[in-house]
Amino acid sequence: MSTTTGATRVSSVDVACAQAHETAPWFAATDLSTRAGLLEAIADAVDSHIDELVPIAMAESRLGEERLRGEVGRTTGQLRLMANVVRDGVFLGVVIDHADPSLTPPRPDLRRMNIPLGPVAVFAASNFPFAFSTLGGDTASALASGCPVVVKSNPGHPQLSDAIMAVAQDALVAAGAPDGVLGLVDESLQAGIDLVNDDRIEAVAFTGSQRGGLALAKIAADRPRPIPFFGELGSINPMFVTADYLAGRETELAAGFVGSFTLGAGQFCTKPGLLIAPRDETLRAALIEAVGGAPGQRMLTDGIRDMFLAGVDARVSIGDVEVLHAGGLDDANDEVRPTLMAVSANAILAHPELLEECFGPMSLLVEYDDAEQMLRIADALPGLLAAGVHAVGDESVLAELLPRLSAHAGRVLWGGWPTGVAVTWSMQHGGPFPATTRPESTSVGAAAVQRFIRPVTYQSVPEEWLSPALHDANPWAIPQRVDGVLD
Amino acid sequence: MSTTTGATRVSSVDVACAQAHETAPWFAATDLSTRAGLLEAIADAVDSHIDELVPIAMAESRLGEERLRGEVGRTTGQLRLMANVVRDGVFLGVVIDHADPSLTPPRPDLRRMNIPLGPVAVFAASNFPFAFSTLGGDTASALASGCPVVVKSNPGHPQLSDAIMAVAQDALVAAGAPDGVLGLVDESLQAGIDLVNDDRIEAVAFTGSQRGGLALAKIAADRPRPIPFFGELGSINPMFVTADYLAGRETELAAGFVGSFTLGAGQFCTKPGLLIAPRDETLRAALIEAVGGAPGQRMLTDGIRDMFLAGVDARVSIGDVEVLHAGGLDDANDEVRPTLMAVSANAILAHPELLEECFGPMSLLVEYDDAEQMLRIADALPGLLAAGVHAVGDESVLAELLPRLSAHAGRVLWGGWPTGVAVTWSMQHGGPFPATTRPESTSVGAAAVQRFIRPVTYQSVPEEWLSPALHDANPWAIPQRVDGVLD
Repeated sequence: MSTTTGATRVSSVDVACAQAHETAPWFAATDLSTRAGLLEAIADAVDSHIDELVPIAMAESRLGEERLRGEVGRTTGQLRLMANVVRDGVFLGVVIDHADPSLTPPRPDLRRMNIPLGPVAVFAASNFPFAFSTLGGDTASALASGCPVVVKSNPGHPQLSDAIMAVAQDALVAAGAPDGVLGLVDESLQAGIDLVNDDRIEAVAFTGSQRGGLALAKIAADRPRPIPFFGELGSINPMFVTADYLAGRETELAAGFVGSFTLGAGQFCTKPGLLIAPRDETLRAALIEAVGGAPGQRMLTDGIRDMFLAGVDARVSIGDVEVLHAGGLDDANDEVRPTLMAVSANAILAHPELLEECFGPMSLLVEYDDAEQMLRIADALPGLLAAGVHAVGDESVLAELLPRLSAHAGRVLWGGWPTGVAVTWSMQHGGPFPATTRPESTSVGAAAVQRFIRPVTYQSVPEEWLSPALHDANPWAIPQRVDGVLD
Repeated sequence: MSTTTGATRVSSVDVACAQAHETAPWFAATDLSTRAGLLEAIADAVDSHIDELVPIAMAESRLGEERLRGEVGRTTGQLRLMANVVRDGVFLGVVIDHADPSLTPPRPDLRRMNIPLGPVAVFAASNFPFAFSTLGGDTASALASGCPVVVKSNPGHPQLSDAIMAVAQDALVAAGAPDGVLGLVDESLQAGIDLVNDDRIEAVAFTGSQRGGLALAKIAADRPRPIPFFGELGSINPMFVTADYLAGRETELAAGFVGSFTLGAGQFCTKPGLLIAPRDETLRAALIEAVGGAPGQRMLTDGIRDMFLAGVDARVSIGDVEVLHAGGLDDANDEVRPTLMAVSANAILAHPELLEECFGPMSLLVEYDDAEQMLRIADALPGLLAAGVHAVGDESVLAELLPRLSAHAGRVLWGGWPTGVAVTWSMQHGGPFPATTRPESTSVGAAAVQRFIRPVTYQSVPEEWLSPALHDANPWAIPQRVDGVLD
């Protein structure tokens, strides 16, 4: 790895794209077992280098050792889940209809499967230096689908990006893969723009700010040959509280809410940015006490910290916003303390800018007077990664509220808090615009493999020219729908 | 139906969108059996009104009775296939992971399924007044996914659009559906623009020209809240011929090719627009004879005819293009005769405009001198709906050619001709840009249902608030992946 060889793994955009393009046909043609093995080889290598990687991450990201070690486990867990998804083979979507000359018109032999799009550009995110970065979920899912990946390094942790890429590239070489399955370009804005514009790139995956994401999405759309842009752009993640639930649970609710919105210094895309609750003095007092006891934390970078402080200032300056607890910057140790504000239901409806994410440890209590106000807020929500409700279970308003949450969010919670996104077969981490640019896709969980593929139907093509996935003998032993019947 | 009641079913955009929006929650919540039944009720009603509908279509579209009767069968067959797709339930993508407190971190109960996007705007296409129009594939698949549909009528057959909408709406009412499941707006350009801009519309399906489609796609992307635009924009559909195949098969090949590119007056999106074959005098002579024997045909509208004639003129005016058989307009009966041109492999590489579709009965013979030239053409292809090869089977060049066809096309043929798109579980009618705006989707076949849905994951939500699709008892008896295992 780079810490021993000292050689950077950063390439120019042209070289990285050329290698990815060159390797794409080989990688697309790998059998499922080989491809899964490569994912596991990367995971094993990262686990075995954890003691070298975590200190680099600590120095660059300002995150603590325990958090970062846990994140390494999540990262290699993602790679191993994707290896299972590959072996499972359902993602290939194999459908076979044998020729039927008795039909009108006669039907030829038709065989459908998903094929990889080709080289994918992955933008490493700052807030999870392992799990959403160089070898994070986007890279794992693109590799699982058979697409080479070119990672755009993150300015918040370029040395970590380089070091972990060396671990992965060396693992791939040791496992027998050619160059170009995984490549890295530098952390500059220009490298990112050049990468999206490169004609050899077939899709882009991005996790980050709405502003940056939409600018890159426009570049992807304006290419002579537009390509899909899978942007996960953040979300306000509202949590609704019913009156029946609140009574007697104010302290518990406040503790859970403050714990969630200050977790990781509020630098999670699933941070609950709104708590929409009945107007209640006991809840107010409990929230003020809970947030007052929350510790200061360092943010990922100076830039992110300054954006956060400016975002808080902008909200405080809105006349209808009341500050329940003022946090701010502790210059001595560069820590920010959490801020909590309050606003009425009517006021937030008049200020849609309060429905935009502010990345960092702040949140907003929205106080409503009746269920009708609560539903009006639900109607006004933008697209969301997550939304939830704390309810007893027999409130009639739920029949109105829950469908509204489904209509706006990719994940709907009953109780609990949105931070914490399980890496499973069932996860959906995505949502309607502007939470993401592709609401049908997820960036966490098994279904993430479905982003970087497209179907092709082969008509009357002899078996020897087809992928084994499409053979009648089904040598890969994967699910096939044959003549309409799923086996 | 309208021919008896005389009442038009055309609404204003505002009324149609309001009704669709109002009905969307009811329709989304229909159980699979009810929804499938509605699709079948529409199909049955159309079949029973075929004798009234076909004469309207003949008068407006200039197509013949036999063709149109066949197309009605295709249309109701599509609706019935979609009813089967609905009952099958795989499209819901149900995944259940039960809570597991033993994991680190503990996993909550997570249940994932696809939900409908909401009202879909469907642009009726001109070239299939039944199968790709008001009740065509796009409408069938949107209804199957649980989305109300607002159809933008086609200027080539507004009376047919109105009459068949009356049949469908009356069938829906008789089957117990509320208003708003299906609506119709007029055939004007402005109605189409207003429809795509309406905030209550959640997705658009379009089949038509690249120019019109890209203009509407831009409107969909530039909305304050962008929505997916599923545009099927046509394609050049090249057919490659190997030298080993050609020898002795020149006459058969010429007959098949001319039959395919003149079918329906060349007004199919799957028309083979290029025949890429070895330079061969016998083939030339056979093609000239075959095209000379092809009859004149009326085109769908005056506008389409004039566009076609202009497209032929533009190609003829390119210096490197040789006319093998000049067709043109027979003023007396308003019929066009097919045109066949020839160009060298090097010349077409120098004229990328020859890779663009020209809608109508014309095609281009591309003559190559060696396999390397053939592969260079394959590399230069734009995105395609279909591409194919006529080969013997043991030519070594196929290992190079077939992956290139997969890389550029949604359907790859071995022998045969691309016209004729079977309505099956396995069909892919789509392809990379510019053939479509969404290469991962299809507008024909069972998988078309996947366009108008998105996944939502429910976390710890009690079963009584979830769709029956997500219940442990699986009352709909659909495939569920439970704790990682697909039953």
